Amino acid sequence: MDMLTFAMDTEGGEPLYLQLYDYIKSEIQAGRIACSTKLPSKRKLSAHLGISQNTIQTAYDQLIEEGYVLPVERKGFFVCRLDNMVRLESEGKTGTRENKASAQNAAYDFSYHGVDMPNFPFSTWRRITKDVINEYDTELLRSCDIQGYANLRRSIAGYLRQSRGVNCSADQIVVSAGTEYLFQLLIQLLGSDSVYGIENPGYEKLNLLFNSSRAKFKAINIDNEGMVLEDIRKSGADVICITPAHQFPSGGIMPINRRIQILNWANEETNRYIIEDDYDSEFKYSGKPIPALQGLDSSGRVIYMGAFSKSLSPSLRISYMVLPEKLLKEFKERMAFIICPVPMIEQKVLCRFMQDGYFERHLNKMRNIYKKKREALTEGILKTGRPMEVIGADAGLHLILRVNNGMSERQLVDTALNAGVRVYGLSKYYIDKKNLSPKPELLLGYATMEAEEIIEAVEILSRAWFDELKHLEGKVN
Amino acid sequence: MDMLTFAMDTEGGEPLYLQLYDYIKSEIQAGRIACSTKLPSKRKLSAHLGISQNTIQTAYDQLIEEGYVLPVERKGFFVCRLDNMVRLESEGKTGTRENKASAQNAAYDFSYHGVDMPNFPFSTWRRITKDVINEYDTELLRSCDIQGYANLRRSIAGYLRQSRGVNCSADQIVVSAGTEYLFQLLIQLLGSDSVYGIENPGYEKLNLLFNSSRAKFKAINIDNEGMVLEDIRKSGADVICITPAHQFPSGGIMPINRRIQILNWANEETNRYIIEDDYDSEFKYSGKPIPALQGLDSSGRVIYMGAFSKSLSPSLRISYMVLPEKLLKEFKERMAFIICPVPMIEQKVLCRFMQDGYFERHLNKMRNIYKKKREALTEGILKTGRPMEVIGADAGLHLILRVNNGMSERQLVDTALNAGVRVYGLSKYYIDKKNLSPKPELLLGYATMEAEEIIEAVEILSRAWFDELKHLEGKVN
Repeated sequence: MDMLTFAMDTEGGEPLYLQLYDYIKSEIQAGRIACSTKLPSKRKLSAHLGISQNTIQTAYDQLIEEGYVLPVERKGFFVCRLDNMVRLESEGKTGTRENKASAQNAAYDFSYHGVDMPNFPFSTWRRITKDVINEYDTELLRSCDIQGYANLRRSIAGYLRQSRGVNCSADQIVVSAGTEYLFQLLIQLLGSDSVYGIENPGYEKLNLLFNSSRAKFKAINIDNEGMVLEDIRKSGADVICITPAHQFPSGGIMPINRRIQILNWANEETNRYIIEDDYDSEFKYSGKPIPALQGLDSSGRVIYMGAFSKSLSPSLRISYMVLPEKLLKEFKERMAFIICPVPMIEQKVLCRFMQDGYFERHLNKMRNIYKKKREALTEGILKTGRPMEVIGADAGLHLILRVNNGMSERQLVDTALNAGVRVYGLSKYYIDKKNLSPKPELLLGYATMEAEEIIEAVEILSRAWFDELKHLEGKVN
Repeated sequence: MDMLTFAMDTEGGEPLYLQLYDYIKSEIQAGRIACSTKLPSKRKLSAHLGISQNTIQTAYDQLIEEGYVLPVERKGFFVCRLDNMVRLESEGKTGTRENKASAQNAAYDFSYHGVDMPNFPFSTWRRITKDVINEYDTELLRSCDIQGYANLRRSIAGYLRQSRGVNCSADQIVVSAGTEYLFQLLIQLLGSDSVYGIENPGYEKLNLLFNSSRAKFKAINIDNEGMVLEDIRKSGADVICITPAHQFPSGGIMPINRRIQILNWANEETNRYIIEDDYDSEFKYSGKPIPALQGLDSSGRVIYMGAFSKSLSPSLRISYMVLPEKLLKEFKERMAFIICPVPMIEQKVLCRFMQDGYFERHLNKMRNIYKKKREALTEGILKTGRPMEVIGADAGLHLILRVNNGMSERQLVDTALNAGVRVYGLSKYYIDKKNLSPKPELLLGYATMEAEEIIEAVEILSRAWFDELKHLEGKVN
């Protein structure tokens, strides 16, 4: 199939990806596109229909997800057999589609979730996976160590020592399947009697997680250096959860003085701990690397947390923490019944990926790619000449944008979405809204978009927020 | 290397596998067994040294785990390069070895943990894994649905409807990485204010899990039909955790009357629920299959739980639950921040394994294999002519043995271990020891041993417990 053409509604009705998806699906269902037909390439279809490749990707993904289309590597997208399709159609479609729609109904999406997928070293990962399943047999079916595969923990410990200045041995590492699982382990280990202090604004899941686990927690305001010590004291928190390398979401780096103050605070009482979430520390684009807070801690007060979500992919579901000796002992005594949830095959693949030097190479490559994306975004914003400020350190996979056009956060987000660009208001990251900046702020993630798309999207935003201001204000209000 | 010979201590000092492991390791370290040397096959070495293949496997496994030896499929076991080895030697060895030693220092082990590994369909699993990683690309890196990959949930729902009479749709299924993670989700969903009733005796982790989560729980006695209704009422429990298909560990099947009584109890109050753990229901060797309790429930009171730990392998770390509609709604509203911990690749492989009919075939094959192992065990026990009783239904992967020789449970376990056979006392599964049977009972799992080994081990047990009774009693006391 060389090309397809259909009547698009570009007047802002249904999102384009949904129109394209609906059209192809109905054509397949009606038999007008036959089984095994190759769909047009994203590039060609994008040129033909005048819509972005991203939009086409999203429509194709949805068709793949629902079993209408099968992607074949280096060959393209093929229509599936009908019998397979009908079964897939019968159940649960709505749920899946709703999930997608709420996340992706815009041509450009500055989502903070996800990574640059086209640059994932898929062929290496695939090769190592094959090697692992070829070489091993029953060993892959044995339960691994409670804390995770020992060789993987050694690789992680080596990486953390060298790259992040974390002072640890493999024995202190606990591997799990996501930050939320690590926090659940910690809540059990430290006790739901502890009062947890979380950053305001901060990682939105912590709030839900502590609530759901019925653990006591307090939102603690941050300034541009991180959690304010006075507010920590006032909160009565015993355990604080912070992101010193790159505060989420504000993007600040905690300076050494604040780090020492916070360590001193922790040392005042025996039940005080600091949970350091080093979630995207792999990516710093200028200046010296700043070692983890854990490396400064000489009295076992810091629980260090990391993940491969940003450095490799969130779908790997591999995270880890480094427990201080005292907590490690308690963990072994009390929590040994909780088995590491990551399958052995995956742990072995990741371990070899690290041991063979691919992880380091991938990080170096991605640091350059993300640096360029960030530059495309910041330079694009600067070039518009509009009153917009970029906030946050030159690091990570997102930045904060302040837009000074008189619009509220809600208006900024809605106006952008109407123009086809999804941006995210910062207010949702505040538990205590009293600390909200008087000027509206937006969170822009740049990992999943291509540099050219970022530049296009910034131009659209600039026009929508400034040129069409009067027209759109009328529409929104 | 054709063969190796070393001075074994068979007088009951160090376990044989540990002696063999220590010997080979020191030979490799000293360079007396060179890199790339092929070790003798298990079969040959077993014949040569006169120790079981199981013992050799355990020693080899330990060497593999620590990186001294690499297993190459269909080729054998090869000594690793030294540089790799030295690094592996440096750290964390003790932890790993302790874990192994405590679980495996006997020539025969009636462990309940683990499955029949030689019969795992490894080549099929490997082929499907390769197909999955060949066909898909970035899709594998996308986060999947919060409740797990939709197609896998459809396969599980289909299986549960057909094989277990569970009344559910794919949308009600939540996939997770082990029973303990499902319970943690449920504790958050049902609230730590609920009082949980657990079987006494019962699954040993539940006790630890509720303790660790600071959830209130009560041990509720069982009789040979399952939880006693009067005791449920007395306990004040709101949520009871039961194993009606094959009570763990006693092995009883809950008859229909008790099922109806318990469902009626749950229907009396709106906050009452039954957690039905159907952990090894795949294996029933005689009589009619008994459908899940969930299938009888018309008012959304039963939370059904299952896993692939017994039917495929515990190391896959894939479990699931079926939520009643009301809880499903709450789950979606409140728990959507917890992402399914099972990697997408694994979910896709399992899904295809089920869709292509391999799961069904594997279950049918394993049912025959386990049936034969169970028969080897029960017939072996019968043949000894000793006063021993087998308790529990003709199902699952374990049975309960009552030994009437006047020894205490501790004496039975120690005597068996001294003779090289590990058996497990039932008392550790009792939270409330008042309900303990006056006659000592043992738990014997038969999944991981070969039928011939089972027969050998029973003969050893019979001699140790009866013929050498006087001699050993002196030693133990």
